[in-house]
Amino acid sequence: MISVLGVDVGGTKIAAGPVDRAGDQLASPLFSPSHTADTESFLAGLKASLRQAMTRFDSLAPKAIGVACAGTVDMARGVVVTSPNLPLTEVPVASILEAALGVPVVLENDANAAVLGEAVAAGAARGLRNVVMLALGTGVGGGLFLDGRVYRGASGGAGELGHIIVQKGGLPCRCGSRGCLEMYASGPALARYAKAQTGEAVAELARQGDPEALDAVRQLAEWLGVGLTSIANTFDPDMIVVGGGVSALGELLLHPAREYMRKAAMPPGRERIQVVSATLGNNAGLVGAALTAWELLERADTATSTAR
Amino acid sequence: MISVLGVDVGGTKIAAGPVDRAGDQLASPLFSPSHTADTESFLAGLKASLRQAMTRFDSLAPKAIGVACAGTVDMARGVVVTSPNLPLTEVPVASILEAALGVPVVLENDANAAVLGEAVAAGAARGLRNVVMLALGTGVGGGLFLDGRVYRGASGGAGELGHIIVQKGGLPCRCGSRGCLEMYASGPALARYAKAQTGEAVAELARQGDPEALDAVRQLAEWLGVGLTSIANTFDPDMIVVGGGVSALGELLLHPAREYMRKAAMPPGRERIQVVSATLGNNAGLVGAALTAWELLERADTATSTAR
Repeated sequence: MISVLGVDVGGTKIAAGPVDRAGDQLASPLFSPSHTADTESFLAGLKASLRQAMTRFDSLAPKAIGVACAGTVDMARGVVVTSPNLPLTEVPVASILEAALGVPVVLENDANAAVLGEAVAAGAARGLRNVVMLALGTGVGGGLFLDGRVYRGASGGAGELGHIIVQKGGLPCRCGSRGCLEMYASGPALARYAKAQTGEAVAELARQGDPEALDAVRQLAEWLGVGLTSIANTFDPDMIVVGGGVSALGELLLHPAREYMRKAAMPPGRERIQVVSATLGNNAGLVGAALTAWELLERADTATSTAR
Repeated sequence: MISVLGVDVGGTKIAAGPVDRAGDQLASPLFSPSHTADTESFLAGLKASLRQAMTRFDSLAPKAIGVACAGTVDMARGVVVTSPNLPLTEVPVASILEAALGVPVVLENDANAAVLGEAVAAGAARGLRNVVMLALGTGVGGGLFLDGRVYRGASGGAGELGHIIVQKGGLPCRCGSRGCLEMYASGPALARYAKAQTGEAVAELARQGDPEALDAVRQLAEWLGVGLTSIANTFDPDMIVVGGGVSALGELLLHPAREYMRKAAMPPGRERIQVVSATLGNNAGLVGAALTAWELLERADTATSTAR
């Protein structure tokens, strides 16, 4: 039995676990804290975590490592260009980890990894060729799986679906623009609609049937419907997978948003496109990063056979 | 010398001309009127036009025909599902033409054909791997060339960039939704901004320096900038090609729209993404359809060799 190690590096914790070729997790991930004070301590902590994981899962013979992290990732060079929650600017993380751990390492953006995980390994999207992931959290991210592969764009920046403009001249966004989807369909937006502290608090009240919280969820759902409509008309996908913390609202949010899209998007997509909750949850990035590492191993095998 | 026949079928005329493997036109196209009264007369007219073209370009030995038309096209079945300007609903145009003309025929949506033409054969985008085409005319259409091939979506409906929602609850669109980009960045929108009859009239006045017309072009450019920003953040392409009748305004329109995107889109794309006018003009659909037919011929060749 061999495996690869899938790793999801977040602002608070690092998860690392073994994954097989089909994208199934072979054991529960190992969790360790993420040290984000500065680049050096972050990298030292990451190396230590991964050494520990390699030892822990030694019987599953991890042959490569796939690392998912938030930010702009240059896969070809194995460099994190910038990251919103990690102290990494132009850091060659892949080669640093390869030197420390002695196996091939591939880096991937977390939303790209998540859409690959959902499309290849998860229940709902498994086997579909065109899947768009929309991740609703503090920010709104996206991942694109088109014609059976992850689409990353010319410089790794594709899929920033939270920064589609849905209201010209609307609310100022942290990206510097105005009226971005992120300002209307994120956790902070949900909190704003209910004049509450956090989106989580509103979600909890909504689940208990609080009328004001339910009204805030309805507002959020309408904006999500606008986003789903633009995604449907742009990509005509098989499925849109909605993930991120806010998606824990489930059908309370998805049902009205889906209905909005069924009316507002163009035929035949509006009838056909499935809109579902992410099924891998917090594991999507880890699984997708592992699948990317499997692809790397296979390309290396092919290159070796060709060279013979 | 062999060629394929590229055909662009519009609501008023049919253009058909020979194209080589590189996408270069080998002769000026033959034009004939499009009969749109009903399906039967339309098909009779189309067959007659193509027979005439096959005879005219006989010395260039057309081996296949590629047909571009507006609407939802099911390429795999060779069927026009619906069309906004042709009397075609669920009509198997490819097999009808194959029976009449005795060569393989492939059907393609006009915007997809145009982006393929621009990306493969035109000056500016030639050789780029990620090109988005935005066609501004009476409506607003789009074509996607991603990772080196045309992206069509799960049911051929991808790239409806005119129906990205740019203003929630905005102007009602003919698609049934509200606030679509098409309502703000099309020829009729330009006319509306200047309270004029047609976009062409406003464009002519703007070129002469008329202040009100220039102000209308500025409004149009701002909305186009919103569209370019969403496209940049979604696709992170190498280039966005702006075509369609409205793009005849050239830099008068493109310069301010590009500047808008340079400020509003996310780095690094906003600095890098080129925004240019379509260079093939009215020939893009014809050339792109021909390139699709060349691909069909090559796939047939490969299948034959494999079978041997």
